[in-house]
Amino acid sequence: MSDNSFGRLLRVTTFGESHGPAIGCVIDGCPPGLALAAEDFRRDLDRRASGRSRHTSQRREADEVEILSGVYQGRTTGTPIALLVRNTDARSKDYDRIADRFRPGHADYTYWQKYGIRDPRGGGRSSARETTMRVAAGVVAKKWLAERYGVRVRGHLAQLGDLVPDGFDWDAVETNPFFWPHAAQVPALEACMDALRKSGDSVGARVTVVAEGVPPGWGEPVYGKLDAELAAALMSINAVKGVEIGAGFASVTQRGSEHRDEMTPAGFLSNHAGGILGGISTGQAIVASIAFKPTSSLRLPGRGVDVHGHAVEVVTTGRHDPCVGIRATPIAEAMVALVLMDQALRHRAQCGDVGEVVPRIPPYPAE
Amino acid sequence: MSDNSFGRLLRVTTFGESHGPAIGCVIDGCPPGLALAAEDFRRDLDRRASGRSRHTSQRREADEVEILSGVYQGRTTGTPIALLVRNTDARSKDYDRIADRFRPGHADYTYWQKYGIRDPRGGGRSSARETTMRVAAGVVAKKWLAERYGVRVRGHLAQLGDLVPDGFDWDAVETNPFFWPHAAQVPALEACMDALRKSGDSVGARVTVVAEGVPPGWGEPVYGKLDAELAAALMSINAVKGVEIGAGFASVTQRGSEHRDEMTPAGFLSNHAGGILGGISTGQAIVASIAFKPTSSLRLPGRGVDVHGHAVEVVTTGRHDPCVGIRATPIAEAMVALVLMDQALRHRAQCGDVGEVVPRIPPYPAE
Amino acid sequence: MSDNSFGRLLRVTTFGESHGPAIGCVIDGCPPGLALAAEDFRRDLDRRASGRSRHTSQRREADEVEILSGVYQGRTTGTPIALLVRNTDARSKDYDRIADRFRPGHADYTYWQKYGIRDPRGGGRSSARETTMRVAAGVVAKKWLAERYGVRVRGHLAQLGDLVPDGFDWDAVETNPFFWPHAAQVPALEACMDALRKSGDSVGARVTVVAEGVPPGWGEPVYGKLDAELAAALMSINAVKGVEIGAGFASVTQRGSEHRDEMTPAGFLSNHAGGILGGISTGQAIVASIAFKPTSSLRLPGRGVDVHGHAVEVVTTGRHDPCVGIRATPIAEAMVALVLMDQALRHRAQCGDVGEVVPRIPPYPAE
Amino acid sequence: MSDNSFGRLLRVTTFGESHGPAIGCVIDGCPPGLALAAEDFRRDLDRRASGRSRHTSQRREADEVEILSGVYQGRTTGTPIALLVRNTDARSKDYDRIADRFRPGHADYTYWQKYGIRDPRGGGRSSARETTMRVAAGVVAKKWLAERYGVRVRGHLAQLGDLVPDGFDWDAVETNPFFWPHAAQVPALEACMDALRKSGDSVGARVTVVAEGVPPGWGEPVYGKLDAELAAALMSINAVKGVEIGAGFASVTQRGSEHRDEMTPAGFLSNHAGGILGGISTGQAIVASIAFKPTSSLRLPGRGVDVHGHAVEVVTTGRHDPCVGIRATPIAEAMVALVLMDQALRHRAQCGDVGEVVPRIPPYPAE
Repeated sequence: MSDNSFGRLLRVTTFGESHGPAIGCVIDGCPPGLALAAEDFRRDLDRRASGRSRHTSQRREADEVEILSGVYQGRTTGTPIALLVRNTDARSKDYDRIADRFRPGHADYTYWQKYGIRDPRGGGRSSARETTMRVAAGVVAKKWLAERYGVRVRGHLAQLGDLVPDGFDWDAVETNPFFWPHAAQVPALEACMDALRKSGDSVGARVTVVAEGVPPGWGEPVYGKLDAELAAALMSINAVKGVEIGAGFASVTQRGSEHRDEMTPAGFLSNHAGGILGGISTGQAIVASIAFKPTSSLRLPGRGVDVHGHAVEVVTTGRHDPCVGIRATPIAEAMVALVLMDQALRHRAQCGDVGEVVPRIPPYPAE
Repeated sequence: MSDNSFGRLLRVTTFGESHGPAIGCVIDGCPPGLALAAEDFRRDLDRRASGRSRHTSQRREADEVEILSGVYQGRTTGTPIALLVRNTDARSKDYDRIADRFRPGHADYTYWQKYGIRDPRGGGRSSARETTMRVAAGVVAKKWLAERYGVRVRGHLAQLGDLVPDGFDWDAVETNPFFWPHAAQVPALEACMDALRKSGDSVGARVTVVAEGVPPGWGEPVYGKLDAELAAALMSINAVKGVEIGAGFASVTQRGSEHRDEMTPAGFLSNHAGGILGGISTGQAIVASIAFKPTSSLRLPGRGVDVHGHAVEVVTTGRHDPCVGIRATPIAEAMVALVLMDQALRHRAQCGDVGEVVPRIPPYPAE
Repeated sequence: MSDNSFGRLLRVTTFGESHGPAIGCVIDGCPPGLALAAEDFRRDLDRRASGRSRHTSQRREADEVEILSGVYQGRTTGTPIALLVRNTDARSKDYDRIADRFRPGHADYTYWQKYGIRDPRGGGRSSARETTMRVAAGVVAKKWLAERYGVRVRGHLAQLGDLVPDGFDWDAVETNPFFWPHAAQVPALEACMDALRKSGDSVGARVTVVAEGVPPGWGEPVYGKLDAELAAALMSINAVKGVEIGAGFASVTQRGSEHRDEMTPAGFLSNHAGGILGGISTGQAIVASIAFKPTSSLRLPGRGVDVHGHAVEVVTTGRHDPCVGIRATPIAEAMVALVLMDQALRHRAQCGDVGEVVPRIPPYPAE
Repeated sequence: MSDNSFGRLLRVTTFGESHGPAIGCVIDGCPPGLALAAEDFRRDLDRRASGRSRHTSQRREADEVEILSGVYQGRTTGTPIALLVRNTDARSKDYDRIADRFRPGHADYTYWQKYGIRDPRGGGRSSARETTMRVAAGVVAKKWLAERYGVRVRGHLAQLGDLVPDGFDWDAVETNPFFWPHAAQVPALEACMDALRKSGDSVGARVTVVAEGVPPGWGEPVYGKLDAELAAALMSINAVKGVEIGAGFASVTQRGSEHRDEMTPAGFLSNHAGGILGGISTGQAIVASIAFKPTSSLRLPGRGVDVHGHAVEVVTTGRHDPCVGIRATPIAEAMVALVLMDQALRHRAQCGDVGEVVPRIPPYPAE
């Protein structure tokens, strides 16, 4: 049961290897009537793309999306939307030397153990190239959420190694290649990245995604809780090692009197919960943060093992990012958007007849 | 699409409200031939139970499990195993005063917004009482994993507010009501809990679960990754706000040269990955940690809103834990075990014919 | 992957063996606010029950339904509805003699081959007793469909061996123990049954279910087609060997000019399609027919094999029906209702915003 | 919840419209190591193809399959296998005149009612062109079933209007464009088809599929029964109106003493059950038959309605088959193979440790 589909009602199936002929996805369950065109995918695919700055892998893919089905005269028809992106800049020979060896910190070893066979070119299926189609599918979800419910999903880099933001401005996020929310620190981030590249090492990162405008009521207790599905969606992104909702691990040392978000008719007084209580959205901003491990593909030699069980030294010379987190923001946004849209559809399936029985409490801070 | 089922091939469906006549579950997909009896559930249900010490809610439930189906002459038959536990110590009148109001930090408000109706007695479906059946189902999974693969799943409290273990000994964990791994600190934990009870406040906690003996190869990339499903399983537990695999958020500040677990034919040299690479088990110990928020049910008054939108003051006087984390260890173990068993079945479905193509690398530390 | 759940959004999980302590089900995904009480189940369970007439098995079960969860103050809450029925009239010793042998035409042999173990008492899980919970779950679906959409689901026996109705009157159906639509023939049916009982043999039957009032648009192409799911639902009933939608196998010899249901603004001119085109409801009556095989439990000796591979003679002396079809009508109705409700929820999930874009064409005949 | 995926563990997702740029599928869950190449698809796609004889639609598609993923060095890797077929001979202008009208007996009306929008070109998603990808996916299933279990899945036309086979020879089936099992009747079938084309009318058909070599034990009671899933799979094929397993509707008039397949240590004495008891394979041949309705696309004028609710006369002039059943055999085979492979994987997931506890009974007739 290889599991390359995501979602229950909005169901995304992705396929493709890093250096195969193409990657693609099928988006099933999208409501009919949504305006959709190939150019809608451009912005987020560019935001995710390699080669956007000198700080990321220099593989340059055009990432031209072809819509193969599900759209007629510019509108979705309710049938599956298939998207195709051809791979054009795959340099498979870069990987010849690692075909028979397991790099430390990579999926090489586990794919071999699971399947007894593995496409080693560029990481095959385990490559971050797969996330391209997450971002593409996320575009559809973001669009529908915005048009149907006024939901906005956006994210930013929240930590790079030891660097944390000294200030916060959503407007700054899209003005630098790091999705960093404080423009004045960008030179420091660039210096950090340059130093990493020089040393041949890598570093981890934290990314935060915020979804505003989500109405109360989305989420399916008890195993389809909104936070549970966000956790799965975000943890399924390559290199993610942790997920927090709202206060996250900071909750451990909080007192209940601090953590519980008090509420008045005028609004919630805080949002430690990150917009979710009992697995269901509160109407406050949904806030999720994730930890990215440092890339394992390093120029620094590391000890590994080959397929015959012999010790080998591994040095990576392909095109790799010293920090995978810095272009992960659009991927994380996409996963959040996909979960939200799926939950929106599920909610109206079961509770489509429930009106506004109790008054809504405005979110904190008032938006 | 209320979602009260968990798992793909080992599929657990739970039902029941805190103060309804009963809670129960149906476990579907368990392989036939597993020895199973009502007394198998005793140990873990007792570990989870309220009333085990003065530090937890004083609700005392016998938690007698009745096996309704799926077992014949002491062995599972492959048909669904239904378990029933009658509720016996439900004091619903404790909750009368909160039936029309939303307590801060609770699911009261979100259930109302979602369903337009809510069983207020003891939290209804959102009560931690539901976790009883997770633990019960987890017993089956633990038993099968141990017998079939030699897998051991166990956990411990890893932080209580600001308190962290000063030492570590698995043997200590079951000797105190906190599942704390260092016996010498137990008096300090008791003092902390007593102080909380006196103050009417609560605090968060961290729980860590470790699964040893998992063979390499379990996990279904890319959306059924082992870590993604652990994240969902653990985040679905009441009051959990964060999930980490292996190094978790500490990865953010790590260098790649530190994080990537090097390997030699004699074994892995570290386990920052927490036993999972590319969503597939490495054969190392699976390590997951979770953050519990502080209980929101406090004697300290809090600002809330009633169903008519009016401001109210909420004071909780029912039986509640000042720290839900201290009896969450068996729940977390259960969720990990359920994910592992489900993945084991899925793995052999697709890859049952894959032999040991490449040599296994022993885990770190050698066990 | 034992599969004891049915439906996608309205998800019913059943459990229980014929002679175990109880049978039951969990109904997940029911919209909140539906009035529901234990007595709602009485009528259909009685219609299905053994012991209703001398023509059916003389096992007499009270079939008292206990609602364990999901209902508060007489209304569904959106959480899982668990139903429990205790087995009270199980005479397991009747089955001792067949515990080690495979009866021809029964699931004995296949359960052994699949699971390597089997509860032989009363057929265990493969007993028609399991259908009790289908009927119970169907009650919820029928009620919701009727209240929310005005859909009526009802069925009748359409053939008993060689006997076919000489007339048709819905009002006659509930006045005889056969669900036969022509009262004048009831004595002939009774004579047929008496002759069968005397001979120790059995005979097959055909049952037809009609659902009126289904709006156009339900059904999920291409693999979740309404007719495909009806086919699975009906074929999953014990002893069913064939399913037809509308004209069914008669379509084979029809001409297209006859079969295609022409339409005018005043309405469809026929309903050979049985209310479904392209897997989606047309707004006409949904018509499905099923074939029941003759019971294999006969007093006439038959050749079988025992668990050691030796030839045995099998004579059934337990309580059995000479025609299982005669009390199958409520079971078939239930399965149709469950499919329809599930599809209704799925339809509004994806297409809840689609208004009446094109005019509805009235069904044939005008109702 | 548009539902364009099929299967649980072997999961096939198809996409594409008749006159869109391409059709395709993603096959997820295929075990690794299966040899697979583009040419493997040729035979069955040719068998299904239009334009194979003068008796079928004259649309001529090359149906060149491109494997986009999941295969490395000629072997499946366990990652999703994506297949793409470009549409090349789509004459969309043929359909301009029907874009705003509902043809009787077609899905035009129901798609409009469901989605409020529809791609009218060639039937859009409801076109039989979608079955191309079923056949392609079925090739993978057939190959795996044959190599892993020695299962052979094959079918034949069993009735064309009033014509039934006068003799039976599997070797004859592939020697004529009708998949007819008796060569001497082929001229009569050709005459029948010629007469239909002349008259502008169409006729129905029956197709039978037989799967030999299926071991006992496949099938998941009670809602994932092998026969239930075959019923859904076959009913989901365009134009199918009925499904029978084994004796099917003939069971209605059979006596139990005739129907129940007696068994001796030397083998079963008949196969009225069609190889399935209690939803689980017996080890006998799986036999399923389906009814195809006569094509609704006729040159004979029919009464229809347009999108504004006005009466229209519909005459079809595009390229259509007078009997869709005559090239449906490979489609039906594919669906049976997909169900069987999926069930095989599910069976070994749950029951992979069950050995041969009881002796196998040879099928009838001995093969």
